Amino acid sequence: MNLQQILTKHPNSNKIDCFDLVKGDIPDPSLLTEEQVIVQTKYISIDATNKVWISGVKTYMEPIKIGEVMKGLAVGEVVYSKSQTLKLGDLVLGLLTWQLYGVFHSSQLKKVPKEYPHHQHFVGLLGISGLTAYIGLKEVGEVKEGDTLVVSAAAGAVGELVVQFGKLMGAKVVGLAGSEEKCKYVEQLGAEYCINYKKEDIFEALKKHCSKGVDVYFDNVGGEILETVINFMNIKGRIALCGAISEYGDVTSKNKYGIKNLSSLIGKRIKMQGFIMSDYAAKFDEIGKIILGYLQTGKITFKEDITDGLENAPKALEKLLNGENNGKTIIRIVGEKANLYDK
Amino acid sequence: MNLQQILTKHPNSNKIDCFDLVKGDIPDPSLLTEEQVIVQTKYISIDATNKVWISGVKTYMEPIKIGEVMKGLAVGEVVYSKSQTLKLGDLVLGLLTWQLYGVFHSSQLKKVPKEYPHHQHFVGLLGISGLTAYIGLKEVGEVKEGDTLVVSAAAGAVGELVVQFGKLMGAKVVGLAGSEEKCKYVEQLGAEYCINYKKEDIFEALKKHCSKGVDVYFDNVGGEILETVINFMNIKGRIALCGAISEYGDVTSKNKYGIKNLSSLIGKRIKMQGFIMSDYAAKFDEIGKIILGYLQTGKITFKEDITDGLENAPKALEKLLNGENNGKTIIRIVGEKANLYDK
Repeated sequence: MNLQQILTKHPNSNKIDCFDLVKGDIPDPSLLTEEQVIVQTKYISIDATNKVWISGVKTYMEPIKIGEVMKGLAVGEVVYSKSQTLKLGDLVLGLLTWQLYGVFHSSQLKKVPKEYPHHQHFVGLLGISGLTAYIGLKEVGEVKEGDTLVVSAAAGAVGELVVQFGKLMGAKVVGLAGSEEKCKYVEQLGAEYCINYKKEDIFEALKKHCSKGVDVYFDNVGGEILETVINFMNIKGRIALCGAISEYGDVTSKNKYGIKNLSSLIGKRIKMQGFIMSDYAAKFDEIGKIILGYLQTGKITFKEDITDGLENAPKALEKLLNGENNGKTIIRIVGEKANLYDK
Repeated sequence: MNLQQILTKHPNSNKIDCFDLVKGDIPDPSLLTEEQVIVQTKYISIDATNKVWISGVKTYMEPIKIGEVMKGLAVGEVVYSKSQTLKLGDLVLGLLTWQLYGVFHSSQLKKVPKEYPHHQHFVGLLGISGLTAYIGLKEVGEVKEGDTLVVSAAAGAVGELVVQFGKLMGAKVVGLAGSEEKCKYVEQLGAEYCINYKKEDIFEALKKHCSKGVDVYFDNVGGEILETVINFMNIKGRIALCGAISEYGDVTSKNKYGIKNLSSLIGKRIKMQGFIMSDYAAKFDEIGKIILGYLQTGKITFKEDITDGLENAPKALEKLLNGENNGKTIIRIVGEKANLYDK
């Protein structure tokens, strides 16, 4: 039996009550065409950007339409194959769907090593979180030894890696997070200080803890915090725009925070650049190896917040959007391995 | 006799009533040290950025203090020299001052060819305006063949060159300007259309005239127009932040327009970058030759709004800030050539 999370409306708040869990049949192997495979989903990455996909607005990809199965970065196993390149039992990574079984063309999938013991790492640490953190720092933020790096949502899946990679790249790191507990964690990871933005005056805290100004700002939140950090940017500073979670709650721009100090980017010659990791696919293998090296030599840690069951995916997204997650949010689907060749 | 424009207060509007014209002595040649020269000012460039310098706020350079002589990009003639590299009669370009005679170190000055017949070009077409337009388009905006280029303040000294250089670089150009007459001029220069932002709905006009979206936005104004153009930016578009004249009237950020749609820079992977031409000094000679080539082969034209007399410099800046100038604003100082060696 298959299960699918179907979009029922475009939400305009962080309440994710816009999916129906629908039962259906497993895809019929006899209907597959050349190079198609059936993938059994194992781990689904839950990301803030999922909220953008269901907003009904065209962004870097077509919006998910009402009545469609939700998409998500996921790892799964090939349980039926008409492909020359992907075999039965192969572990694959790709933009899959929020369902137990899906049909994909082999070109949509990337084979990942099954012998690696932590399959969930392929969606998080070695997947969207790790690649996003590394690319944002290196390719967009151009972090170098001695820089002062500020990162918002520093206890999030991307943020906690930005803190650690930033340190390894030689930067002094100051984080922002939304609770005492998160701030403590961020400081344990190596940040010189983590500002609790719900309690502290951000301007005063940045003034104190970034006394030499800010060279790189890795922005996960947008809005008023972005405006405040801009005040502290140094000449030729870089702002890597990775996410704007503060604005995802309301998809209409009317209520969004307006940033008033962009003209200071001119005199200070600041580069502010939006990016998405998929533009840098040519570097994934190289970066993946670097991150794996960090992990295996004990240089980094990574928290995962794993929940079992496809039925829990919408709630997991809601918690993430409200900052109630505790590490990289992942949905694990434990099930018997389908043997479609038996049928 | 010398004349100096001395800053008397930091203005907080576009009314430039913050200078005293003060009489004084010509610098005493006997007080010069090695490598100093006395320069007689010939042409002073009046630029919107002058307003930033007198605002009292530290930006890319130290603010001009109350009681100090105003600074300005200018061309002048060496009338006394203790320099090994600069001789009596040499024509020089540099960040000079709003006075008839000033003392400078040779390292602050760049010798320019006196035999070139239009000395005022060194501050405008071949100086700040031309270099800013070219660098903003090529180095920051990365304009390429087939791009749609939008430029605000398109009838301004920088804007009119952006229109023409953009066309020569193969872009389709849409301008924005503040009167029928200016728009007509911008279209004569080769823009496919020029939006009269005081009369037209900018959003609707961009929708109509940039039907394929905007690849490069050369921004001279900031504020609400910037926000509107962001809505039309294409994936991987570039925004070159050159000026924010809409915000120069009020130096406190409280009343500034807040830009609400920056999060769209993420999904569209847009680069927004502030720049000032002086960072690209290594390319000045190369770019100067290109611009001169354009001029001499009749590929570009350039309007100049020249007023005689140092006493008129503050008013000329005020007119520029209010969009009442008609071409590159320049103050010409006609006077007998000083012969300080006679004394």
